[in-house]
Amino acid sequence: MRIVENLVTFRLKLNNSPGTLGKVLTAIGTSGGSMGNIQIVKVDKDCKIRDLAVYVSADEQVKEIMNSLLTLGKNLVEVISVKDKVFELHEKGKIYISNRISITTFDDLSRVYTPGVAKVCMAIHEHPELAREYTITRNTVAVVTDGTAILGLGDIGPVAGMPVMEGKAMLFKAFGNIDAFPILLNTKDTDEIVKTVVNISPTFGGINLEDIAAPRCFEIERRLKEILPIPVFHDDQHGTAVVCLAGLINALKVVKKSMETISVVISGAGAAGISIAHMLIHAGIKDIVVCDTSGIIYKGRKANMNPAKEVLARITNPKNEQGTISDAIREKDVFIGVSGPNTITKDMVKTMQKDSIVFAMANPDPEIEPESIEGITRIIATGRSDYHNQINNVLCFPGLFRGALDSGATTINDTMNMAAAYAIAHAIEEEHLSEDYIIPSVFNEKVHTDVAKAVADAAIKTGVARRNIFS
Amino acid sequence: MRIVENLVTFRLKLNNSPGTLGKVLTAIGTSGGSMGNIQIVKVDKDCKIRDLAVYVSADEQVKEIMNSLLTLGKNLVEVISVKDKVFELHEKGKIYISNRISITTFDDLSRVYTPGVAKVCMAIHEHPELAREYTITRNTVAVVTDGTAILGLGDIGPVAGMPVMEGKAMLFKAFGNIDAFPILLNTKDTDEIVKTVVNISPTFGGINLEDIAAPRCFEIERRLKEILPIPVFHDDQHGTAVVCLAGLINALKVVKKSMETISVVISGAGAAGISIAHMLIHAGIKDIVVCDTSGIIYKGRKANMNPAKEVLARITNPKNEQGTISDAIREKDVFIGVSGPNTITKDMVKTMQKDSIVFAMANPDPEIEPESIEGITRIIATGRSDYHNQINNVLCFPGLFRGALDSGATTINDTMNMAAAYAIAHAIEEEHLSEDYIIPSVFNEKVHTDVAKAVADAAIKTGVARRNIFS
Repeated sequence: MRIVENLVTFRLKLNNSPGTLGKVLTAIGTSGGSMGNIQIVKVDKDCKIRDLAVYVSADEQVKEIMNSLLTLGKNLVEVISVKDKVFELHEKGKIYISNRISITTFDDLSRVYTPGVAKVCMAIHEHPELAREYTITRNTVAVVTDGTAILGLGDIGPVAGMPVMEGKAMLFKAFGNIDAFPILLNTKDTDEIVKTVVNISPTFGGINLEDIAAPRCFEIERRLKEILPIPVFHDDQHGTAVVCLAGLINALKVVKKSMETISVVISGAGAAGISIAHMLIHAGIKDIVVCDTSGIIYKGRKANMNPAKEVLARITNPKNEQGTISDAIREKDVFIGVSGPNTITKDMVKTMQKDSIVFAMANPDPEIEPESIEGITRIIATGRSDYHNQINNVLCFPGLFRGALDSGATTINDTMNMAAAYAIAHAIEEEHLSEDYIIPSVFNEKVHTDVAKAVADAAIKTGVARRNIFS
Repeated sequence: MRIVENLVTFRLKLNNSPGTLGKVLTAIGTSGGSMGNIQIVKVDKDCKIRDLAVYVSADEQVKEIMNSLLTLGKNLVEVISVKDKVFELHEKGKIYISNRISITTFDDLSRVYTPGVAKVCMAIHEHPELAREYTITRNTVAVVTDGTAILGLGDIGPVAGMPVMEGKAMLFKAFGNIDAFPILLNTKDTDEIVKTVVNISPTFGGINLEDIAAPRCFEIERRLKEILPIPVFHDDQHGTAVVCLAGLINALKVVKKSMETISVVISGAGAAGISIAHMLIHAGIKDIVVCDTSGIIYKGRKANMNPAKEVLARITNPKNEQGTISDAIREKDVFIGVSGPNTITKDMVKTMQKDSIVFAMANPDPEIEPESIEGITRIIATGRSDYHNQINNVLCFPGLFRGALDSGATTINDTMNMAAAYAIAHAIEEEHLSEDYIIPSVFNEKVHTDVAKAVADAAIKTGVARRNIFS
C-alpha cells in the first residue's frame, strides 16, 4: 500500500564533539529521510538532546534510519524516542465534547441543570418541535459503522475503524459546522443494525452510514430511509456518486460532449458503482455498462448476482453487451473505476473513443497509474490527493447535510443529490475549466455553502423540507 | 413547582421624555421584579432602545411585568422582545463537538483522514488495546435514557429529556473532564434497551444510565453489567446513594453516633431508595426500615411488591416492623427521604431520637420544608441548592467515572462506590464539620480528584482495573 509522506520525530542524544550533527544528518539522508525542523530540547556539558523531524515516504524507512543511527555508535548518538506524526495526532482521539457555557457558580448550575432545566424539558414535552431550538439534535449527525468495509482495508471491525469515523466527524465539523458523533456497532446483522439505529435515532438530526459492506448496505439504507423521519445517507454510495457526477459534468464541458450522447463503462458493482450508475442515468446518460469481477453485467447473467445487480442488469447495458472489462471499455467515452488496482491497462484505454475521460477512483491505488495514460486519454481523475482532479467525498457530505439540516429535510432524495453534484461542478467558473481542473478544492469554502444552499432549495422544491430557510 | 430565581431580559423602546426610565423601573419593581443590568442598545432622536435584565422568582411575574409596562402606554414604552435566560442558554443545545486539530491543508487532511489514518486503523486492528491510546473511546461515556423518569417530571419521553442529558454531559466535562454524549432511546422495552446499548457499546469507555424508571432500571443495569466489559452506572440509584452515605458519615461525626448502633428509616423504594438501603447495609448499619406508598416493607407483605422490594424485605427491617411511615419514623436516629413532597410532618420528626438527622432529598420539593423542623432535628440536608447541606449527585459521578476510566476498570463495584462516599465525606476536614456543613461544595475541585483517586485505587485493590495508574 502506498503510504503518504509522513513526518517522524527522532529525539536524539548527541555527543558534543564537532561534526556529530553532520554525521547524523548524513546517516538519515542516505537512508532516504528528508530533513524537517531540527530543535534543541536540552543542553548538557557532554551532550545535546535534539528533536529531528524527518519526512519519510514509507514506514520501513524509519527502521533503516534507526539502523544507520545505531551504526554511528552509542558514544556519538543515542535514540531516546521516535514519534510518528500521524500516531501523535491520534493520541486520545481527534474529537472531544465542549460545553457551550462554563459552569462556575450555583446559578449556572441551576440554569443548565436542575431545577432550571425542567421548564425547557416541559416546553419540549408540550411542543416537541422546540427540540430543534433548545437541544443539540438539529445539528447532530451519527456516523454509523459496523466496521465491515473500512476504507480499502476490509472487515477490520468497528473499533479499528474508529480513527476513520473520528476523521469523518472532524470533516463534518470543519466543512459543514455539523456536530457528528461516531457510533460503532457491535453487530453485522442487517436486522440488528436497522433496529439499533432506529432505537437511538431520537438523539440525531441525521444518520450518515459509513464503511458498511455491500450488498448489506443497500438494505440497511433503504429500510432506515423508510422508517426514519430524518435524513439517512450512505456516503460510500451517494457521496462518491455525487462528486463523480460533478467531475463528469465539468469534464464533458472541457471535451465538448453531452450527457445524452456519451457511452460510459463503470468498473465495480459495489456500494459506489451501483449508486454511480443510478445517478448517471438520472443525469440523462443512456449508454452505461457496469462490470464486476465476473465481467459485464447483463440481463440473464447467472453468476455472481444479487438484487442490486439484477436491477442494474435491467436498467443499464441497452445494447446487451457481454464479456470482460476489456470488451466493455472499447469505444466508450468515459471509464469510471470504483473497483481495485490494475483493473485496466494502457492498451485498453487506447481502444476508447477520442477525447476519452478516465476516472480511476479506487483507493488507495487506482485502476491504472494515471501517469501511464497521460496523452492517451484527455482527462484523468483519481481519488488521490497527490494528483490533479481529486474525486473527494468531502466536497459533498458536509454541505449536503448542512442543507438538509437547515431545511429540516425529512430525507435526502435524488433531486437533492443531483443539486449537490451541480453545485460542486458550478463552483468552478466555466472559463477556468481545463483538463486538470474539473473539480474544485475541498478548501474552497464556497463549495460547501453552495452545496448547502442548493440542497436546501431542492428539499423545499421536492416538498421534503420542514422549514423554508429562504423565506 | 418551585422555580429558581431567573433572569429575563426585556428589550424596550423608551420615549426620550424625562422620567421615562424611572417610571418603567417603578412598574417593574411593583410587579416584583428585581433589576439587573440596564444597557442601551440604540439611541434615536425620539427614543432609546434598552435591554433591562430583571430577576424574577416565578414565571408568572414576567406576565405581570408585561401588563404593568402596557399600562404605561405605547407612547412611553414599547416591549420589543422578552428573553428568558434559561431558554437563551439552551438555544442550539448546550454541548458541541470540537476538533482537536484544525484541518487547513491537504497534509492535515491526509493525516487525520485517508490515507494516513489507515495505519492507525491497522495498528488497532492488530493490537486492539491501542484503541485506548488512539481513539476517543477511553474518555467517552454514553448518557443513556429512555425518558421514563426525567427528574421529578416522570415519563415525558427521551426528546423532552434531552436538556437534562446535555446538562449531565456538561457536568461530566466540567467536573471530570470526561466526554459524555447523550443517547436517547426510542424504546421502553427492557430487552430492547439492553440489546441497543450492547450494540453501540464499542463506541464508549463507560455507560451512565440516566432517568430510567424503576423497577425496570434494576434489570437493565444488572444485565448490562453482566454483559459489558466496561463500567455501567445508574446514577439515580448509586450516585444518590454514594452522596447520601457521604453526608451520613459526616453527620454521624457531628452528632457523635456510630453506624453500628443507629436506626434508619428510608422513605421511598424506587431507584434511589433501594440503592441507599444496600449501601447503608454495606457501610455497617444494622437497623434499617424502608417505606413505600404502601407503608413499611416487611417479610411476607403481599401488596405492591417487586423483586427488588422482596430483597429489601429479606435484608432490612430486623425487628419486623409493620405500619405506616409515622410508625416507622418513631425513635429512629435518621430519616432519609427519596420519595415526594409532604411525606412527613413536623410532629413525626418530633417522635425521632434525640440529635436526629433528616435528609429530605425529594426533588424539587422535599419530604418536609426544612425551615419547619429547624431546632427540632439536629441536622437537615436536602437536594436543594438554596439550602445548606445539598446532597448533590454531581459530587460523585464525574470523579467516579474519572477514576474508573483512568484505571481501565471493567466495572463499578460496591467497593468503588464506598470509596467514593468516603472520599466525598473526607473532603471536609473533621474540625470544619458542623450541623450546616456536612457536605462539600461541588465547586471544591479537590472533591472530584479525591473521588477519582479513591475509586481508581479501589478498582486496583478489587482486581477490576486493567491499568495501575499509581505504579
